[in-house]
Amino acid sequence: SGLVPSAPHVERLRAMRDDCVVAVAKSEAEALAHAPDTDIILGHRYLRQTLPHTHMLQWIQSTAAGVDHLVSPELLRIQPLLTRCPIFGEEIAWHAWALVLALVRRLPAAHTAQIGGRWAPAEVHPLPYPRRAMVLGMGVIGQHLGCLLRHNGLYVIGVNRSPRDDARRACDLLVDARNWRKHLPEADVLFSTLPYTRATDRILDAATLRMLPAHAVVVNVGRGGTIDTSALTTLLRAGALGGAALDVVDPLPGPEEVDFWATPNLLITPKVATFVPDRQEKLERFFEEQVERFLKGEAPEYTVRLDHLYAEVVP
Amino acid sequence: SGLVPSAPHVERLRAMRDDCVVAVAKSEAEALAHAPDTDIILGHRYLRQTLPHTHMLQWIQSTAAGVDHLVSPELLRIQPLLTRCPIFGEEIAWHAWALVLALVRRLPAAHTAQIGGRWAPAEVHPLPYPRRAMVLGMGVIGQHLGCLLRHNGLYVIGVNRSPRDDARRACDLLVDARNWRKHLPEADVLFSTLPYTRATDRILDAATLRMLPAHAVVVNVGRGGTIDTSALTTLLRAGALGGAALDVVDPLPGPEEVDFWATPNLLITPKVATFVPDRQEKLERFFEEQVERFLKGEAPEYTVRLDHLYAEVVP
Repeated sequence: SGLVPSAPHVERLRAMRDDCVVAVAKSEAEALAHAPDTDIILGHRYLRQTLPHTHMLQWIQSTAAGVDHLVSPELLRIQPLLTRCPIFGEEIAWHAWALVLALVRRLPAAHTAQIGGRWAPAEVHPLPYPRRAMVLGMGVIGQHLGCLLRHNGLYVIGVNRSPRDDARRACDLLVDARNWRKHLPEADVLFSTLPYTRATDRILDAATLRMLPAHAVVVNVGRGGTIDTSALTTLLRAGALGGAALDVVDPLPGPEEVDFWATPNLLITPKVATFVPDRQEKLERFFEEQVERFLKGEAPEYTVRLDHLYAEVVP
Repeated sequence: SGLVPSAPHVERLRAMRDDCVVAVAKSEAEALAHAPDTDIILGHRYLRQTLPHTHMLQWIQSTAAGVDHLVSPELLRIQPLLTRCPIFGEEIAWHAWALVLALVRRLPAAHTAQIGGRWAPAEVHPLPYPRRAMVLGMGVIGQHLGCLLRHNGLYVIGVNRSPRDDARRACDLLVDARNWRKHLPEADVLFSTLPYTRATDRILDAATLRMLPAHAVVVNVGRGGTIDTSALTTLLRAGALGGAALDVVDPLPGPEEVDFWATPNLLITPKVATFVPDRQEKLERFFEEQVERFLKGEAPEYTVRLDHLYAEVVP
């Protein structure tokens, strides 16, 4: 999982069946050493390196809600069961909402002044409270976000490829991939929860972002590659957008690119949307439930269709 | 009002009565020049300097929700009508809530890393989502805050001197000035909306703040003098509090006190809680309604009892 599993978690997994061997891979070398005998991989760190060395792999349980980044030729060859982990939708929605409020109240400008020892009300120009939101991607994260936004009085335009009922219930208006851009001028806040696929690569480009009102804020809790970062920072610098918050950035500029990091009204959080104090506990409980299902011969939840994934992701 | 009034506002005030003269004081000198002929003062900038020069003053309409800072011997001598301006309760509540979410999601740490060009998930340790809030002062601001917090699923303990019905409706439990401290260990977040009086001077001192849980966050949108700032920053530095956000600080440390401004998990906003894009428009509308009442011979709203104010504030 990228985290060291807790001892009770490992113990509970071991106790699930008499012949159950649980190997903890704390490094790439350990992952490679265990690969040949492994039936189930919980977590996806070192997955790309490990896959070529597996012989009996049946199932990979990822820690991520979206698994577009796990695509590789080896995965297609081996064809294991692949399951997602969409249990942090509510946490991600709350992080995204905190980012919106921080941008609307201009907390980055206030904090920049604070760090410089300045009490500077003249430098803080709060934005209007948002009334209309557009949410790109109405999967688990988008649905939690839609409900949170509506609960806080916003009108929510959801955007989804397919018109799913659960997506429709979480927003006021559900539009599809052909019709969403015309609603951009109405959006006070634009969220992306999108996976990275051929269709979403830089989908938020300069022309698209320019359709938003000048006070709009953009929040990305999906994949970094869905936004043209350079177009975004250019618009922010020109005052053509109200603000932006990125929990994901791809490619990630190096520390020497000071202009990027100091873009006005840009707030970067380092992919911490799912970080909550009980994150590991919640993840381990979910893993145990999934393994129990699998060992009973049932299908674990949130299975990904590899053929669909490949058709979307591979260029 | 501290802002330059808009031309339409001045025009609408002038049109209210044939003999109505509206003087705009854009400087202390202009305020002093107009003082002898002034019946009504809208706004309170330069009030202390102006009061000794007034001869026919009947009414002061402040721009502030709390007028504790306007107390002076001249005010007591002249005994004008004094009215508050509590129209920004909702705005202040939203600012306070944005500050809480920013602290809980550790946005100051993320922004500090960002300014340094660092992508640093290991430096960000979000706090648990708050479940219980304590609100000190259940006036207009406290009531808006209580409603917003309850709407977001928090249990709200309101603290007020008097057991008012409107205060009781805005929280789950209303406690009085004798019993509030015993509830501090239950509070995930503590808000102060308190005015500065003899009774509230440094009411949040080291001993009181230490009764909060170590993950608790403290938010002050009342008066700076209600918190012992030095005790607060000492606790933050020791990790004995989760975070603090101050929209008011009194006394305000100078820029050379770098340790104060760089206190970990401290977020300072420079008294901008009421800053919203339509602030001036809303203020001018309120002023006009108040003046209309006054000119019709009715009492303007939100009158302050000067004898009560003096009894509370003057040492």
